[in-house]
Amino acid sequence: MGYVQCNLVVLRKAHAYDFLLYCQRNQRACPVLEVLNAGSPEPKRLAPGADLRTDLPRYAVYREGIRLADTTDISDLWQDDFVAFLIGSGITFDQALEDAGVPTAKDRWVLRTELPTEPAGRFRGPMVVTMRWLRPEQAIVATQVTARFPFNHGAPLHVGDPSAIGANLRDPYFGPPVDEIPPSVVPVFWACGVTPQEAAIAAEIDIMITHSPGHGFVTDLRASELALP
Amino acid sequence: MGYVQCNLVVLRKAHAYDFLLYCQRNQRACPVLEVLNAGSPEPKRLAPGADLRTDLPRYAVYREGIRLADTTDISDLWQDDFVAFLIGSGITFDQALEDAGVPTAKDRWVLRTELPTEPAGRFRGPMVVTMRWLRPEQAIVATQVTARFPFNHGAPLHVGDPSAIGANLRDPYFGPPVDEIPPSVVPVFWACGVTPQEAAIAAEIDIMITHSPGHGFVTDLRASELALP
Repeated sequence: MGYVQCNLVVLRKAHAYDFLLYCQRNQRACPVLEVLNAGSPEPKRLAPGADLRTDLPRYAVYREGIRLADTTDISDLWQDDFVAFLIGSGITFDQALEDAGVPTAKDRWVLRTELPTEPAGRFRGPMVVTMRWLRPEQAIVATQVTARFPFNHGAPLHVGDPSAIGANLRDPYFGPPVDEIPPSVVPVFWACGVTPQEAAIAAEIDIMITHSPGHGFVTDLRASELALP
Repeated sequence: MGYVQCNLVVLRKAHAYDFLLYCQRNQRACPVLEVLNAGSPEPKRLAPGADLRTDLPRYAVYREGIRLADTTDISDLWQDDFVAFLIGSGITFDQALEDAGVPTAKDRWVLRTELPTEPAGRFRGPMVVTMRWLRPEQAIVATQVTARFPFNHGAPLHVGDPSAIGANLRDPYFGPPVDEIPPSVVPVFWACGVTPQEAAIAAEIDIMITHSPGHGFVTDLRASELALP
């Protein structure tokens, strides 16, 4: 808690330009915090000395868009033309939200929507969002707190009715299915760093490695250093 | 005034990944606001219907890093593999500064510094800065106003002694040479969108086209839409 947490995407150099362009065009969902040189596993900016092949708790491996068995070490898969992207995760907010009195320990979902993203090359697809449901006064505080992180998703992109953005709470990507939203809360939605990962899966590129959901990379950078005052 | 103004860089697709990566790694100086698809001259996000080959007032053309004669139309030079980058310019701030009582009509310089940027491929070189000198109370207001534009250089990166960042007022890149700073003002320095252009010139790539200094591209996007509240 309190450190910048990142989603990991590793793919071949041949796909790196289109992927970086996809992230640039959809910066709200895809805040790229570091792109490593081809073949390098050391994130010199965010965590000098770390090794992205071994220092995440769990990895998901995709071949042609099909997810294989998770692994805890990708050293044997690593190639000289692999480019690693570290993309800001909404979990980075959590300490700042807690400090402002907004609880973060539970009630968090990741959902697909029908909001389009702007394509780049073969990367395209819908926006993925993180949802929390909060008491109205907490939703207002959470909007202010997260707006201070423009390079990490920033303020919410929607509040209220999930169907207005095509989100289906009965079929979440992460988190328990929900039949009905409790009456005392309001759902708040942020652009989610899983968006580019989903686009890369849909593109069915030959190989992609990501963090396994809930097992992101914790950097050495304090979240407060990424926030505006 | 009041609209987002951009620096233009056009180069071949073969150099586009390294250039985009250079911008990502030096985001303070190089806020990429739009990257067009290879061969396309229409900035669909920032100015639908515009044509970047004809709609800037003047262009600078570089071959192997050597500047040729300026031109007012690059249609005859245009190639299918050209990629156009629109990068935020500090001039975007001007209306917001004026609204806050900070005059912008004069006393503005562009200067090279000895601050290093983070290289990407063959793109590397020093940070270029925009300097204004302001009365101390204006400097404090200008810092607050520009901090509201995190995707357009943001807050100043230095205030005070130019030599602390290796800037030489006697040899400006743009603006009149200065022998001595008047006693009643303080120099304030912002990262400048000329930085990636300078890196591309130093890289001596086969062809690059930019706006001519002081002749940037005015978009349809209101500057206030790029600002945080």
